[in-house]
Amino acid sequence: MEHAADPSHPRYRSLLMRHRLEVAAEKGMLADSALIAHGRGEAYDYLLGERTIPSAHIASQVALRALHDAEHPVLSVNGNVVALAGDEMLQLAEKLGCPLEVNIFYRTPERMEALLSDLNERKERLGIDVDILGAAPDATIPGLKGPRAKCETKGILSADVLLVPLEDGDRCEALVAMGKTVIVIDLNPLSRSARRGSITIVDELSRCLENMLSMSTEGLPSLESYDHNKSLQDALDAIVEGMKNGLSEPKE
Amino acid sequence: MEHAADPSHPRYRSLLMRHRLEVAAEKGMLADSALIAHGRGEAYDYLLGERTIPSAHIASQVALRALHDAEHPVLSVNGNVVALAGDEMLQLAEKLGCPLEVNIFYRTPERMEALLSDLNERKERLGIDVDILGAAPDATIPGLKGPRAKCETKGILSADVLLVPLEDGDRCEALVAMGKTVIVIDLNPLSRSARRGSITIVDELSRCLENMLSMSTEGLPSLESYDHNKSLQDALDAIVEGMKNGLSEPKE
Repeated sequence: MEHAADPSHPRYRSLLMRHRLEVAAEKGMLADSALIAHGRGEAYDYLLGERTIPSAHIASQVALRALHDAEHPVLSVNGNVVALAGDEMLQLAEKLGCPLEVNIFYRTPERMEALLSDLNERKERLGIDVDILGAAPDATIPGLKGPRAKCETKGILSADVLLVPLEDGDRCEALVAMGKTVIVIDLNPLSRSARRGSITIVDELSRCLENMLSMSTEGLPSLESYDHNKSLQDALDAIVEGMKNGLSEPKE
Repeated sequence: MEHAADPSHPRYRSLLMRHRLEVAAEKGMLADSALIAHGRGEAYDYLLGERTIPSAHIASQVALRALHDAEHPVLSVNGNVVALAGDEMLQLAEKLGCPLEVNIFYRTPERMEALLSDLNERKERLGIDVDILGAAPDATIPGLKGPRAKCETKGILSADVLLVPLEDGDRCEALVAMGKTVIVIDLNPLSRSARRGSITIVDELSRCLENMLSMSTEGLPSLESYDHNKSLQDALDAIVEGMKNGLSEPKE
C-alpha cells in the first residue's frame, strides 16, 4: 500500500486512512470484513466529493449538543473506528468528559485485547484521562445474540445518548429499541444504520470528528430542530448531484 | 467472514465473492489494496441494484464481438480478477481461442507465482486448453514505469483487442495510447478506466463473464453501433435512479 508522506498529494487523506488500517490490521485489531467495509465507504465519500456537506455539518452540531446535554453519554468504538480515528475519539470523550467503550461485532478475546491496548497506548501518548470500557462486559443488549450483544452496565447499557460510528444495522436498531438517542456516522445514507439512527452524520469519520472537536459546545442547534429524513435526503441529493456532474470533469 | 453456504440467502453472491477473495488472500494472490478496491465495487453494485443493466448487457455483446473478430485478442488478468472469476476468464479464453496474460500492478515474484499456479490448477480442474502468459515478460507498455509496465510480446504487446477487467487508470490509458481496442469491466462509471476504455461494461465481473459465456458469437452488435458516452451515462442514470428510490425501501 502506498504511504501518505506528502500532505499536498490529492489522495493524501485517503492514503493516510488506508495506512492507518494497514497498521491496525497488523496489530490484529480488525475483522476480516474491515477493509471491504472501508472500500464501500471510500466509494460513497468519493461521490460526496470528499467534503463535509452542509447537512452533515448541521447533524454533527446537533449530535455534539445531544452528547453534551446528556446525563450519561458514551462513545462506542469498534475496530475500524479505533484504526481510523482512535485519537479523535479519545479527544472527543475527553471534551465531553464521558467514557469510551470498545464494542465489536466479531468479538474475540484477541481482538478485544488488541483494541484495548492500542487505545491505552494512545491515551498515554496524548496524555488525556478517559475511562476506556469494554474489557469486563456484565450486561447484554436486548434483542442481540451471542458475543456481539455484550456490553458494560456502567457504559453502553446505561447510556442515554450514544455515539456509534460505522455501526452494524442490527446493533443500531437494538440500541434505538432500548430508547437511547443513537448517533450514527456513516457514509452511506441508505444503510440501515443511517436510516434507523436518531441522528445520522453522513460524513467521513475522521473529518467529522475533527469538525466536532473544533466546535464550541455553546449555541448549538437542538435535537428538536433536526429533521432526520431531510438530512438523509440532502446527503442523497449531494451524491446524486455529484454523480450527474461526474462525467464532465476528469477524476479517478 | 461469513461463508456463502445457502444460495437462497439474499447476500449469497456477495458473500461468495468475499469468500473467493479470502481464499485468494490466503494464497498470497492479492495486493494490499485488493479488499478496499472490492469494497468500492460493492458500493457501486449495490447502487446498481446488483443486476446487469441493459446498457451493460449491450456493451458486453459489443465487447464479445470485438474480441471474436480480433486478429489477436488477449485477456489480461490481475489478482482480484483471478480471485473473483478465474474460472470464467479461462472459459472465456477457451471460447475465444485466445491467451490469457497475468498482468499485475503491484508486481512481485511471489504474487506472480501464486497467480500462475492458481490459474494452472484451475485449468487442470476445468480440463481446458488455454495459453497462460505473464511468467516471462520480454516487453514493456510504453508510458509506464517499473514492474507494472512488464508484458509479453506474444501477449499484451501484440494484442489488437484486449479485455482488462478491474484495470488501473494509468495502465488503461497507456494501452489505449498504443492504439488497442481496450475493453474495461468496472462498476464505477466515473473511474478513469471506465472513461478511457474503448468499450466499458459497468457490471460486476463474474455476472458479466457468465453473461458473455452464455452468448452466441453470432449476430452481435458491432463496435460502430456502440456509443461509449451514452453507455456510461446510462449506467450513471441507473445509479442515480437507484439512489433516488433508495430511501423508500428498506435495504442494508
